[in-house]
Amino acid sequence: MIALDAMGGDFAPKVAVEGAVKAARLGIAVGLFGDQTVIESMLIGIDAQWRSLPISVFHCSQVIGMADEPSRSVLKKTDASLVRAMQAVVDGDATAVVSAGNSGAALVAGTLILERVEGVLRPAIGNFLPTNKGSVFCLDLGANTDCKADYLEQFALMGHVYVQQINNIKNPRIGLVSNGVEPYKGSLAVKQAYARFERLPINFIGNVEARDIFDDHADVLVCDGFVGNVMLKTVQGTARSLMTWIQQESAKSYWRQLALYCASPIFKTIKQRIDYANKGGALLLGVKHPLVVAHGCSTALAIERALIFAHDVVAQQRVVNFNAALMELIQRPAEAEFYSAQLSENHNHV
Amino acid sequence: MIALDAMGGDFAPKVAVEGAVKAARLGIAVGLFGDQTVIESMLIGIDAQWRSLPISVFHCSQVIGMADEPSRSVLKKTDASLVRAMQAVVDGDATAVVSAGNSGAALVAGTLILERVEGVLRPAIGNFLPTNKGSVFCLDLGANTDCKADYLEQFALMGHVYVQQINNIKNPRIGLVSNGVEPYKGSLAVKQAYARFERLPINFIGNVEARDIFDDHADVLVCDGFVGNVMLKTVQGTARSLMTWIQQESAKSYWRQLALYCASPIFKTIKQRIDYANKGGALLLGVKHPLVVAHGCSTALAIERALIFAHDVVAQQRVVNFNAALMELIQRPAEAEFYSAQLSENHNHV
Repeated sequence: MIALDAMGGDFAPKVAVEGAVKAARLGIAVGLFGDQTVIESMLIGIDAQWRSLPISVFHCSQVIGMADEPSRSVLKKTDASLVRAMQAVVDGDATAVVSAGNSGAALVAGTLILERVEGVLRPAIGNFLPTNKGSVFCLDLGANTDCKADYLEQFALMGHVYVQQINNIKNPRIGLVSNGVEPYKGSLAVKQAYARFERLPINFIGNVEARDIFDDHADVLVCDGFVGNVMLKTVQGTARSLMTWIQQESAKSYWRQLALYCASPIFKTIKQRIDYANKGGALLLGVKHPLVVAHGCSTALAIERALIFAHDVVAQQRVVNFNAALMELIQRPAEAEFYSAQLSENHNHV
Repeated sequence: MIALDAMGGDFAPKVAVEGAVKAARLGIAVGLFGDQTVIESMLIGIDAQWRSLPISVFHCSQVIGMADEPSRSVLKKTDASLVRAMQAVVDGDATAVVSAGNSGAALVAGTLILERVEGVLRPAIGNFLPTNKGSVFCLDLGANTDCKADYLEQFALMGHVYVQQINNIKNPRIGLVSNGVEPYKGSLAVKQAYARFERLPINFIGNVEARDIFDDHADVLVCDGFVGNVMLKTVQGTARSLMTWIQQESAKSYWRQLALYCASPIFKTIKQRIDYANKGGALLLGVKHPLVVAHGCSTALAIERALIFAHDVVAQQRVVNFNAALMELIQRPAEAEFYSAQLSENHNHV
C-alpha cells in the first residue's frame, strides 16, 4: 500500500482523492490519510463502488498547512495526515509515502520519521531534467538550502549511484553547478566541494554553468537545494513565458495565428518533453524508505503519476538497492572515520 | 573617452577593435588598451583612415586571461589592459570602462581601482530582464558569490534607487529571490535579509520564486551573485534549448518546416525581446566611476552596444546621480553607525 497524504497540496483533498481512485483502478493499493468524512464523501461522489477498489481511508484529525513552519508543525502535530502517512511506512503498514503538501514539512518528517540512511548527513531531492540528447539527474532540488561542501560531496555520491542503477551508466559524468567552468569559480562551499569531488571515486567533469544544463555535458548535476530550486523553477518560468510570448506575438495577425496553428504539433511534442510532472514527483534520497515529494500545485493526474512512480520504486526495490550501494560507498573503511566524525557533528542539526 | 579593455573576451582583440570602430563612427571617443602593434594593424585592416576617427591606442604589455585568478592577477599585472583602462578613468583621461574579459578580474579591479562608493559594502552587477509586461531589474548577477544579509540589504537599496531613476517609478516593488514565497523559506542569509528588508524604506513585496520572475510581480529582484548568475544563465540555456527543440521537431516533416517558416516572424520578435546583448553589458553598481561588464562571448556588435551604453551612462550622469542618491539612503543618520560598523568589519575582505 502507498500512503498518500490526502490533505497536502494546493487542491487537497480533491485532487488527492481523484488521483488515488485513478491509481487504484490500475491496481495500486492506496491508503488515504486525512479527514475521513470529507474523503469518503468525495470518494462516493467519484465512484459509488469505491469500496471495491484497493483504497483504505485513515482518519487524521490534524493538517500541516502550506504556511506552517515545518520543524515545529511536524513535532507538534502528531496526528497530522503527513506524519501519520510516514508513520504507516515505518510501522510496515505501507511501503512508500506520497505528499504534495508543505515540502519543508515533508522533508523534516522524512528525515525524522523515515530516518536517514546510516552515514548520510543530509537527504536530498533528486530528479531528471530533459536535455538535448536525453536527461540529466539533478540534486539537491530543494531539501537543503544551506549546504556545506561535505553535503555536496555526498550528493555527488548519491547521484553517481542513482544514475548508475537507473540509467545503467557505468561511470556517470558528475558536474558541479557553478558560476563559471574555471575551478576557482563558485561560492566558498562550491569551491571546497570542487577539491573534494576530485578525490572521490567518481567521473568528475568539473564545473558546469547553468547555461549548459541541457547540453548533455553531464549525467548528474550537483548543487545545493536553494540553487537547485532556483534552477528548476527558472526553467519552468522561462518555458512558460516563452510559450506566452509566442501566443502574444501570434495574436497580432490572422496569418501568424494560422502559422502557429499549423506549428502546434511541434509545441505539443515539446510540451510533453518539458513536462516535469510526468512522474508526478521526486524521490528523497538518503532516507530508509521511499518518499515521493510532489508539487504543491499537483493535479489529479500528477497525483496518479506520483502514486505510480512510488509503486514502481517499491516494485523495483530501488530505494533498497540504492541505499545498499550508497552505504558501501560512504562507509568505505578508509573514509569511515571521517564520515562518522562529520555525522556526529551534524547529527542534532535538523 | 570610453576606455575599452581591448584584450579582454573570447574573441579579443578582433571584436574589440571592430566594435570600437563602429562606435567611433557614431562619434563616440574610444581608447583601446592593449597590444599596440596588433591593434593598429587590425585598425588599418578595417579602415585605412582610422586615424580620422576618435580612436586612441594605449599600449599595454600585459593581459589578464580568462583562466587567471582574479585578485592575484589584478594586483600583479599592473600593466594589464584591464588595469590600465581602469586607471585611465581614475586619472581623468577616460569617463568610463568597458571590459568583456575575465569578469572576476574586472570586478576586483573595479572595486580596488575605481573604488567603492562610501558606505557600500560590496558593488553588485545589475541588469534588466524582460518580463511579460515590461522589465525587471536583477542584482547581483555575478559580482559576489557569497552574500551576507547586509550585502543583500544594500543591493535592495541599490535596485530601489536605480529603478527609481531609470524607469521613473516612484516606489519600485522590491522582491527577494527565494525557494518559496513564505517568509520562512530561503537560505539563512535570505531569511535574515527578509527581516531586514521589512525595516527598509522600500516597497518590499516579499519572496519571489524563480518561476515567477517574468510575471511582473516585482520591479527589482534581489539575490546573491551565485544565484543571480545561475538564474540568468538558466534563462539563456532554456531559451536556447527550446529554440533548438523547436527546430529539431520541425525538421521531422516538410509540413512542419513550412509551418515553422511561416511562424518565423513570431520567433524573430521574441528573439529580440530576450536578446540580453541589446545593451552589450551590465553596470557595476556601487563604485565611483562607470564600469560596463560585457559577456566574455561578446561579438563586435555587443562591444559596440556596450560602448554606446557606457557613453549614454556618462552623458546622462547616471552613475553620479545614482551614487548621490544611494549614499543618502545608506548614510541616513539613524543607521550611519550601523553601516560604518559593518563597513570597517568588511573593509579588508575583498
